[in-house]
Amino acid sequence: MIDIKGICPIIATPFTDSGEVDYESVENLIKELIKGGCHAVTLFGIAGEYYKLSDEERKKMVELTVRVCKENSGKLIISVTDHATEVAVKQAKYFEEAGADCLMLLPPFFLKPGVGYLFEHMKAIANAVKIQIMAQYAPEQTGVSIAPEVFQKLGNECPNIMYYKIECKPAGSYITNLINLTQGNVKIFAGNAGFQLIETMDRGAIGAMPGCSMYDVYLDIYNNFVNGNREKAIESHNFLLPMLNHIRQNVEQIIHFEKRILKLRGIIKSDYCRKPSYNSDEYFDKLFDEFYSELSQKYAWR
Amino acid sequence: MIDIKGICPIIATPFTDSGEVDYESVENLIKELIKGGCHAVTLFGIAGEYYKLSDEERKKMVELTVRVCKENSGKLIISVTDHATEVAVKQAKYFEEAGADCLMLLPPFFLKPGVGYLFEHMKAIANAVKIQIMAQYAPEQTGVSIAPEVFQKLGNECPNIMYYKIECKPAGSYITNLINLTQGNVKIFAGNAGFQLIETMDRGAIGAMPGCSMYDVYLDIYNNFVNGNREKAIESHNFLLPMLNHIRQNVEQIIHFEKRILKLRGIIKSDYCRKPSYNSDEYFDKLFDEFYSELSQKYAWR
Amino acid sequence: MIDIKGICPIIATPFTDSGEVDYESVENLIKELIKGGCHAVTLFGIAGEYYKLSDEERKKMVELTVRVCKENSGKLIISVTDHATEVAVKQAKYFEEAGADCLMLLPPFFLKPGVGYLFEHMKAIANAVKIQIMAQYAPEQTGVSIAPEVFQKLGNECPNIMYYKIECKPAGSYITNLINLTQGNVKIFAGNAGFQLIETMDRGAIGAMPGCSMYDVYLDIYNNFVNGNREKAIESHNFLLPMLNHIRQNVEQIIHFEKRILKLRGIIKSDYCRKPSYNSDEYFDKLFDEFYSELSQKYAWR
Amino acid sequence: MIDIKGICPIIATPFTDSGEVDYESVENLIKELIKGGCHAVTLFGIAGEYYKLSDEERKKMVELTVRVCKENSGKLIISVTDHATEVAVKQAKYFEEAGADCLMLLPPFFLKPGVGYLFEHMKAIANAVKIQIMAQYAPEQTGVSIAPEVFQKLGNECPNIMYYKIECKPAGSYITNLINLTQGNVKIFAGNAGFQLIETMDRGAIGAMPGCSMYDVYLDIYNNFVNGNREKAIESHNFLLPMLNHIRQNVEQIIHFEKRILKLRGIIKSDYCRKPSYNSDEYFDKLFDEFYSELSQKYAWR
Repeated sequence: MIDIKGICPIIATPFTDSGEVDYESVENLIKELIKGGCHAVTLFGIAGEYYKLSDEERKKMVELTVRVCKENSGKLIISVTDHATEVAVKQAKYFEEAGADCLMLLPPFFLKPGVGYLFEHMKAIANAVKIQIMAQYAPEQTGVSIAPEVFQKLGNECPNIMYYKIECKPAGSYITNLINLTQGNVKIFAGNAGFQLIETMDRGAIGAMPGCSMYDVYLDIYNNFVNGNREKAIESHNFLLPMLNHIRQNVEQIIHFEKRILKLRGIIKSDYCRKPSYNSDEYFDKLFDEFYSELSQKYAWR
Repeated sequence: MIDIKGICPIIATPFTDSGEVDYESVENLIKELIKGGCHAVTLFGIAGEYYKLSDEERKKMVELTVRVCKENSGKLIISVTDHATEVAVKQAKYFEEAGADCLMLLPPFFLKPGVGYLFEHMKAIANAVKIQIMAQYAPEQTGVSIAPEVFQKLGNECPNIMYYKIECKPAGSYITNLINLTQGNVKIFAGNAGFQLIETMDRGAIGAMPGCSMYDVYLDIYNNFVNGNREKAIESHNFLLPMLNHIRQNVEQIIHFEKRILKLRGIIKSDYCRKPSYNSDEYFDKLFDEFYSELSQKYAWR
Repeated sequence: MIDIKGICPIIATPFTDSGEVDYESVENLIKELIKGGCHAVTLFGIAGEYYKLSDEERKKMVELTVRVCKENSGKLIISVTDHATEVAVKQAKYFEEAGADCLMLLPPFFLKPGVGYLFEHMKAIANAVKIQIMAQYAPEQTGVSIAPEVFQKLGNECPNIMYYKIECKPAGSYITNLINLTQGNVKIFAGNAGFQLIETMDRGAIGAMPGCSMYDVYLDIYNNFVNGNREKAIESHNFLLPMLNHIRQNVEQIIHFEKRILKLRGIIKSDYCRKPSYNSDEYFDKLFDEFYSELSQKYAWR
Repeated sequence: MIDIKGICPIIATPFTDSGEVDYESVENLIKELIKGGCHAVTLFGIAGEYYKLSDEERKKMVELTVRVCKENSGKLIISVTDHATEVAVKQAKYFEEAGADCLMLLPPFFLKPGVGYLFEHMKAIANAVKIQIMAQYAPEQTGVSIAPEVFQKLGNECPNIMYYKIECKPAGSYITNLINLTQGNVKIFAGNAGFQLIETMDRGAIGAMPGCSMYDVYLDIYNNFVNGNREKAIESHNFLLPMLNHIRQNVEQIIHFEKRILKLRGIIKSDYCRKPSYNSDEYFDKLFDEFYSELSQKYAWR
């Protein structure tokens, strides 16, 4: 059984300028992330625009990602996002058979199912697979609240649900509560673009699942932190923060700017986002360029 | 170009007791609705649990429904529910080619796209097909508000968006506003299980899109109304109201009880709902039986 | 210690045509409710437009209501709606000293405080007074969810919190859960305008807190029910349902129509509602008149 | 007619350790802000915990603030937050008579009134006073969306509504839209704790309304910016950002930490917040101390 930790970015879904999935860029992106030192890559996170893909596209993405990860010895997390438990269970099994190392699990939220239904949903998926599972708690995006006690009970009944990606606001006290409730028997990942990455790791998180375009910035922060250079980690985080503060004012905005960074870095071919997306404007284009210029110098992006 | 009006129920998705789509029951259900006099049938409404189906299942549902409608001379509305404009456009074209008479269109709601994005989404779909379109306005379910002025402008730019299914609360004043804004140049359908069907038709609606299990009850109300027997229509609506008041307290609840009615009426084989669903209890089972008994006597259900 | 049960309507706040509180009409209304047989009257419910009153007006309302209740031997429930715990505690003590028989308690909801904060809020109020308390659970209006386990724990720590007004959707299963969790050691009131009054009482509720304009209709239903005439209770409820279905599509709408009924019945002088309110239109005015005519005949309103 | 611009912080409401308003600290705080160079001070912003005060306390706050502002030649903005239009109009008139230089106006949000009602509410208040008005747009806190076209129309009908405090996410494009729609005929203030202060000013904002505890930090940024030292402004903003990023993860959290800063700086006596509030924990206390230490050195706080 593998051990997930560190920086496990969400794989963006590159499109061509006409809006088709650009699988070549997907492959290039995954290679970049693995070779660049990411501890794992994550398919179908919200930042990966999973909700804008057809099932067929998702299937091709799975096959491609599994292959590229195998060829490059990268670990792979795939997120189960289907609403119906029956469909989600099938997807979970398919991801496991296809070769995922770990599942992420976003509980359903349309029509706001009660917590009891969410519990049964997550349990059914955990029981259907043998691989490890990371439950995602993203109430800002889903509108659905889950108390840490629910996850505590879930972990007791489902030993393979061992990871949690916590991105409520503020996440800090929730994480500490969950760690205390479970006597430390959970492994926490930071979400929310790593805005509070230092705090989250100080509180015991073992990694983060940010967007992929600045994976090396997050690796720099993470590696400094785990190597005991907390001051340097904070310095790098503070360097990132102003950009993050502007390009992550809402979810479609960060998806838009992640794509732009990936294109500028030469990792994907087009920065097309499927619609509804975020429309930048003249001012923001200029501001973005300033930020990009600073970061690309510091991190020697091409 | 066909003309849609009257009772156009949402086709439930029958499952087997093990949770697979029961296509035989789907076929039986559609035949029942058409032969029973429904003016059209509607695929992939919310009450059809569209959000619990895989793309493959939806494709099979489309093929089956188109065939059964053709064989039985029934009109068919298919709802485009995909989040991404690019994917929704493809689906819309596919539905048109497959043989849909009209599209319903539920604008995307995850991450609450701004109204401008919703407008562009609806326009792109309207431009991609030649058949008529019904825009669905369901803010209670989606959390997304759209002013009637937006639909007015949309209709001006997209002549094939001519129908509106309005299910905000209260819908009445919204409908009257929309009719007035467009000088009557829109065709309104009642949604929301027909709770305010009489009011909605009094205000100018030309039909309703209720659940399918009690299609004949809605037909009775509608036919009486359009034939000038408003008093009899009200009487039948008042007879229905107590049951509706109990089995439609939230969306998953009415999906559950619609299935139960369809099974008791011998139209589908199992009342299975994919999860997350609504769990009834002993009391509600008893209450439901009382209501069912009354309605089945009045309407001579088997 | 008194025992609250039965029909305990929310006292509307009558205004003059220029928008001032019409205390004379308040007095008349309370007398009407008590003499008409209401088991208690409730001040500062949502239907009483409490959120549109200044503190000074609320104080005068309290003094007036206490006096009129005493003079007419009516029981009085007053709702504590203040956001801050410190302010709510003071209000609770003031209401107790002024002569309230029972407090209703709407937990704060602005900025969506976490459940832990709501628990502490309710507990602080319960500890500050000796009289009985009814916790109000109205997630549709407040956007704040509270699990029945939280109320169970609250009742254990605060013996004077013994009543619950449950108006989530659906309320039925929540009520049954709460009764089961507490081994029946709670007293439940129906809210939500009594839409599911029969179901709620079937499940063990001991009363209801509807609007006040049709108090005698609710008394008719309640009295028939508790006297064993469930069929007659259902008949009266079914008679009410079509009107309720139309005048209670949202909260400001029912406030508007309650006032209109009260004025037509000669109980208050003006049907003015403070703004933002509900604007009726020509159609709805006509529909309302039809409903009013039917009910006023059946219940011999003047 | 005065001209509002610059840094106009929200006056915190200091309490004693037993939860009473500490008027002495209020006075001290206002003096500090005015003498420290704030362009105006703002009473009853959300960060001022206005929703936790009784009417009587608010009245005393108004009287005190007016007096202290007059004695110290400070400009005063007072926010009208009452739900009912009739009550809000009275408050607005009272604030004007008492001596406010400008009103802020938070439209009502409980029960989510439609945009038409909000428009009438804002217009009624504008018509009732002669002083200038700043409309506050805070959809994250209120859950109520208002399109920029609504404010455009409002400004046309109400010439004294000339300021807008925009704190939607992202605010940037909304601000640019509003400026374009009105041909620059509006004056914009940044809200949202000044997270995107540079962007907002780049886009044409003329000031900000942050919390009050770090008023000098915001003045430093603002003054550098308007004096042409954009680089220095950015540098100071980047210095602030890490702290802001941690102490402003939700509204009650920043209220909590603002109080703590004010107490440490010797400006108020107690950091008590009325409940529901934010409960810090051991980790956050330590993190806060680190941030405080850095900022207090840079800005020579006592």
